[in-house]
Amino acid sequence: MSKVLVPIAEGFEEIEAIALIDVMRRGGIEVIMGSLEDQLMVKGAHGVVVRADRPIEGLGADELDMIVLPGGWGGTKALAQDATVQSLLKEMDAKGKNIGAICAAPFALEAAGVLKEGYTCYPSIEEQLQTPGFQGAKHDVVESGNVMTSRGPGTAICFGLAIVKKLVGDKAAEGLKAGLLADYCAAR
Amino acid sequence: MSKVLVPIAEGFEEIEAIALIDVMRRGGIEVIMGSLEDQLMVKGAHGVVVRADRPIEGLGADELDMIVLPGGWGGTKALAQDATVQSLLKEMDAKGKNIGAICAAPFALEAAGVLKEGYTCYPSIEEQLQTPGFQGAKHDVVESGNVMTSRGPGTAICFGLAIVKKLVGDKAAEGLKAGLLADYCAAR
Repeated sequence: MSKVLVPIAEGFEEIEAIALIDVMRRGGIEVIMGSLEDQLMVKGAHGVVVRADRPIEGLGADELDMIVLPGGWGGTKALAQDATVQSLLKEMDAKGKNIGAICAAPFALEAAGVLKEGYTCYPSIEEQLQTPGFQGAKHDVVESGNVMTSRGPGTAICFGLAIVKKLVGDKAAEGLKAGLLADYCAAR
Repeated sequence: MSKVLVPIAEGFEEIEAIALIDVMRRGGIEVIMGSLEDQLMVKGAHGVVVRADRPIEGLGADELDMIVLPGGWGGTKALAQDATVQSLLKEMDAKGKNIGAICAAPFALEAAGVLKEGYTCYPSIEEQLQTPGFQGAKHDVVESGNVMTSRGPGTAICFGLAIVKKLVGDKAAEGLKAGLLADYCAAR
């Protein structure tokens, strides 16, 4: 069973985080919601408070198959500034492990130096980024080497499906897409 | 400012609940996440634990503009069996107030006798329902009198936008749709 860490920081975008977690768990992936602090209760950008499964402290790249960052500007800034998240991103990248980010969160990947040329993000966030190769709205999900990126709340289910396709397989992703009633997610 | 209650019961479908709450709050609606018990921590169908804002006990129809039920079969059964939710649904309906339900949750509306002819729900849930007028997949959101229904996780953002359109207005809903990158939601 694949194991994926979703770090949850105050100000995270709720639809993005929850859609990714829900879709990945439906796909049979073990998802860890990781808090940046010892405190497990984390408040999102729209006031929804969720309980993380554990602090991220102590997690290493060897036990993870992927790390995926939800967006929300407040949450993204926290992920970009958190030493544990940043060193985990570098360690994952150095080991060639999968990394994902949606909406504003590619900013936190760039901060760690792991964003690859060829990516997407929430419209206008590209103005905050120096990495070349912004793909705009051509695709809901862009894959470049070991890094997958997506655009925003409306593409979060599709991003979750793309991750399931990558870590679990085509058949699981196709079945899930039908079950979620998310026919608008492009076949990839 | 419109006020909407979203009752959260153990086993609620996380994408549906969170997408509705997030989209409505973005639209300027005051959303109350209501717990069925005094205990505010509620676990969803895929293990995500959220903290409700307050217990539903003590809330009356007069202070609400709408009640919207998220799906998930476990959560739906709890909503169908909970005396407070059921009497609140009847009181809202008797006063002509707005009622909404997505996925399996029209089952909880039917239990209260408030589901109107002309509705949609998650595929196959209609087999559990006696109310005539199932509309299938023709529309992501169906409106019949004071009752709005929708289909499942993949239509939850669109349902939230339809509620914003109804309670706040066209312009707010159109702006939100663009901001959420949810162009796939049909204009209604």
